[in-house]
Amino acid sequence: MNYGIIAKVIGSLLIFEAAMFLPAFMAGVYYDETSSLVFLGVMLLTLVVGGILTRFTHSSRDIRAKEALIIVAGGWVAVSAFGALPFYLSGAIPSYMDAFFETVSGLTTTGATILHDIESLDKGILFWRSFTHWLGGMGILVLTLAVLPALGVGGFQIFKAETPGPVADKLAPKMKHTAVILYTAYFGITVLETVLLMFGGLSLYEALVHTFGTVGTGGFSTLNSSIGGYSSAYVQWVIAIFMVASGVNFSLYYAAYRKRLSDVFQNEELRFYLLIIITATMLIFFDLQWVFHGSVFTTLRHSFFQVASIMTTTGYATVDYEQWPVFSQSVLFFLMFVGGCAGSTGGSIKVIRLLVLVKLVKREIMHILHPRAMLPVKIHKRLLEADVIASVTSFYVLYLLIMAAGTMLLTLENIDIISAFSAVAATLGNIGPGFGFVGPTQNYADFSMPAKGLMSVLMLMGRLELFTVFILMTPDFWKERA
Amino acid sequence: MNYGIIAKVIGSLLIFEAAMFLPAFMAGVYYDETSSLVFLGVMLLTLVVGGILTRFTHSSRDIRAKEALIIVAGGWVAVSAFGALPFYLSGAIPSYMDAFFETVSGLTTTGATILHDIESLDKGILFWRSFTHWLGGMGILVLTLAVLPALGVGGFQIFKAETPGPVADKLAPKMKHTAVILYTAYFGITVLETVLLMFGGLSLYEALVHTFGTVGTGGFSTLNSSIGGYSSAYVQWVIAIFMVASGVNFSLYYAAYRKRLSDVFQNEELRFYLLIIITATMLIFFDLQWVFHGSVFTTLRHSFFQVASIMTTTGYATVDYEQWPVFSQSVLFFLMFVGGCAGSTGGSIKVIRLLVLVKLVKREIMHILHPRAMLPVKIHKRLLEADVIASVTSFYVLYLLIMAAGTMLLTLENIDIISAFSAVAATLGNIGPGFGFVGPTQNYADFSMPAKGLMSVLMLMGRLELFTVFILMTPDFWKERA
Repeated sequence: MNYGIIAKVIGSLLIFEAAMFLPAFMAGVYYDETSSLVFLGVMLLTLVVGGILTRFTHSSRDIRAKEALIIVAGGWVAVSAFGALPFYLSGAIPSYMDAFFETVSGLTTTGATILHDIESLDKGILFWRSFTHWLGGMGILVLTLAVLPALGVGGFQIFKAETPGPVADKLAPKMKHTAVILYTAYFGITVLETVLLMFGGLSLYEALVHTFGTVGTGGFSTLNSSIGGYSSAYVQWVIAIFMVASGVNFSLYYAAYRKRLSDVFQNEELRFYLLIIITATMLIFFDLQWVFHGSVFTTLRHSFFQVASIMTTTGYATVDYEQWPVFSQSVLFFLMFVGGCAGSTGGSIKVIRLLVLVKLVKREIMHILHPRAMLPVKIHKRLLEADVIASVTSFYVLYLLIMAAGTMLLTLENIDIISAFSAVAATLGNIGPGFGFVGPTQNYADFSMPAKGLMSVLMLMGRLELFTVFILMTPDFWKERA
Repeated sequence: MNYGIIAKVIGSLLIFEAAMFLPAFMAGVYYDETSSLVFLGVMLLTLVVGGILTRFTHSSRDIRAKEALIIVAGGWVAVSAFGALPFYLSGAIPSYMDAFFETVSGLTTTGATILHDIESLDKGILFWRSFTHWLGGMGILVLTLAVLPALGVGGFQIFKAETPGPVADKLAPKMKHTAVILYTAYFGITVLETVLLMFGGLSLYEALVHTFGTVGTGGFSTLNSSIGGYSSAYVQWVIAIFMVASGVNFSLYYAAYRKRLSDVFQNEELRFYLLIIITATMLIFFDLQWVFHGSVFTTLRHSFFQVASIMTTTGYATVDYEQWPVFSQSVLFFLMFVGGCAGSTGGSIKVIRLLVLVKLVKREIMHILHPRAMLPVKIHKRLLEADVIASVTSFYVLYLLIMAAGTMLLTLENIDIISAFSAVAATLGNIGPGFGFVGPTQNYADFSMPAKGLMSVLMLMGRLELFTVFILMTPDFWKERA
């Protein structure tokens, strides 16, 4: 194992993170908060530790698959560990484990919070909390894809592990180019949403914080009642639409920019994604109208907002959906297992995988009817190779095995099965709120320390496409080959 | 479509069923119950309808795949429709839909009941109710495999659709031989359990009824409190062990009889099956001891009984497991998605499929570590073909899609999500009891008629390995090829 190169890359990540404390520091200074000084201290510490790590020597500049996996998982843990310090040292979150949970939740764009009273915290602290969504959204490691090549490190293995979703379409021949493209789209959407929210009467600060939560599909808010705190229908629509936009494969924005519109409209994953959103919205809309007879547009807005929020794994809420009829709740419940498109900031199983799985079922039916026919599985007119199908299937199986194991462990907290099950779904799927004990009006504060540790691991697993983290727990991984 | 041959085979099934009313009639006569006359009437009616159907002419004696599928699904529905008549006409179950639900539940060896007060019913009626488990257990169509060849009909397609589980190992070159082997094992186990239960003080009637419920992995009892009504530890252990025995691939009993013991001990599915049972029993045992500090042997018995019951999809209960700590409940909850071995009378997803899926995950991990290695998936040292893996995967995906769709529909009954989810799991998996609204002390009486219809379909789907029923709902199936 080439530990030198691992230390070097993680060190670079920390130096990058140190710089990322600056915006939060500036927000604190602007609002004249003494707590902002904490950011300076933490920035210095992170810089020093990062600097020391980059001084490690290494024999070879090659990164093998194993090292890349350690860098990805270890990098997230290291960045979370330092990212938690401002919460802890400022006293905003008195327990370091809680601060770590909150930071992992932020960086993995989960949005599960242990905070009871968000509104009482300093604005600089809350800015950092939401900024972790934005940083995590694109993937800290994807952001540093432009940095790594400067170190002379070929980053393809990392990108393979890091890119959300199974189809890592090569956008451009070079990794660096890919990163710049995705980053530009991400930045553009961020600016657009911020401006649109400011038109709705939000301050720059509020607009930024909620944009971070949206484009990262995170879900941290500065209000105790989440987006329900903004009564403006305009603000709620803007956030809902941008949640949907952030669940789309970002490479499609590049395709649209390059005027390859047929690539966009004929994208099977996008169509399936929108089909599920529209169907789920309609189901909930009719259920709510049937039961409550409310205003049509209000009902439609709340239906669409909650569907977009859970489906894209953001986790914002405009209403307490646990007050809804059970049918509507069950629709949201199963949306927890869908997620965004591959190449988006959304988590969970992801639309492309479900599309492949549904196609497998269809093929099986055709196979029974026509046993001698050759029946390939195609996406975007391209044949899916056997190992892509195997990878999708294994992911799905492992996802549900982890769901089962995680739920059993969480029931040791003596919460009911649906609370435990949805807490695991909400953390593994990087969603945030679930049902019951972790419903939209609840939070994760009352779990025990071991449970918070378990859910931190689940959030990391979910964000890093399971195998990246899971493989580190297998004995085979640590066996050095002769 | 060769409708003549379909009518003919279903007609033969009904004639067979008519004969099967006899034991229940005799039980009724023995206990001097007037309701037993109903069996005579129903027997006559079934015989006449069956006779008329067998008179249909057909052009060809070949059964194509499509016709075989219609025979399997249609046969189960027809036999259930006539099997429901004694309940309805005797007044034991005043609603025909309820009687149909109860019969489907019996024949699919589910054991979900709509009856509130079982003990008030006539013994002949209850005998028939439990006898449907025994008939269904081996599969009415497998039982008639010896009849079909006499009609000159090649039954292989039917066996393929009917045999529980994906690995239809050819036990013996001829279908008829296979049927005789499985039937002998089934009959032997039935006699053995009946005798052992009689040693425990049960009357022949009680012993038979509970043996039917056990070997068919059904779960209908004659007591309102299920097996909890027998305080004898001996009786509970006998039933628990026979439940486990009935979840084993019956061809292994033939292997044992032929002294091919290494085939038995090295059977990977059997080992995995026993491993899951032992692990789950231990987890629940320690959880219960930790919380309740009860007698060690009593706790062990109840842990093992409930694990064996849910895992093999029988559904008997000795205690109300909803009074257990949530961890133990969650272990039982996830066992609902395991089921028996292929070639047993157990339902649900089945151990062999889970074994294949776990091996797929293991292979994926090895593939990430050693990208260039050839990594075949093997069971019993034999390579699994790509289409067997595709079939297992599709089954699993379809199972969970049906779970989701079924749960959403059932929440329209305004029961909580876990009740709806477990009701679907308990019917689709042919288990019987679930959690909450369908817990072990509850029943299915209070569902609406549409919900009972839906769950009847789910029970049939589960029993006929999903695709057999699901495929009939696709438009492609009904398209006649030019």
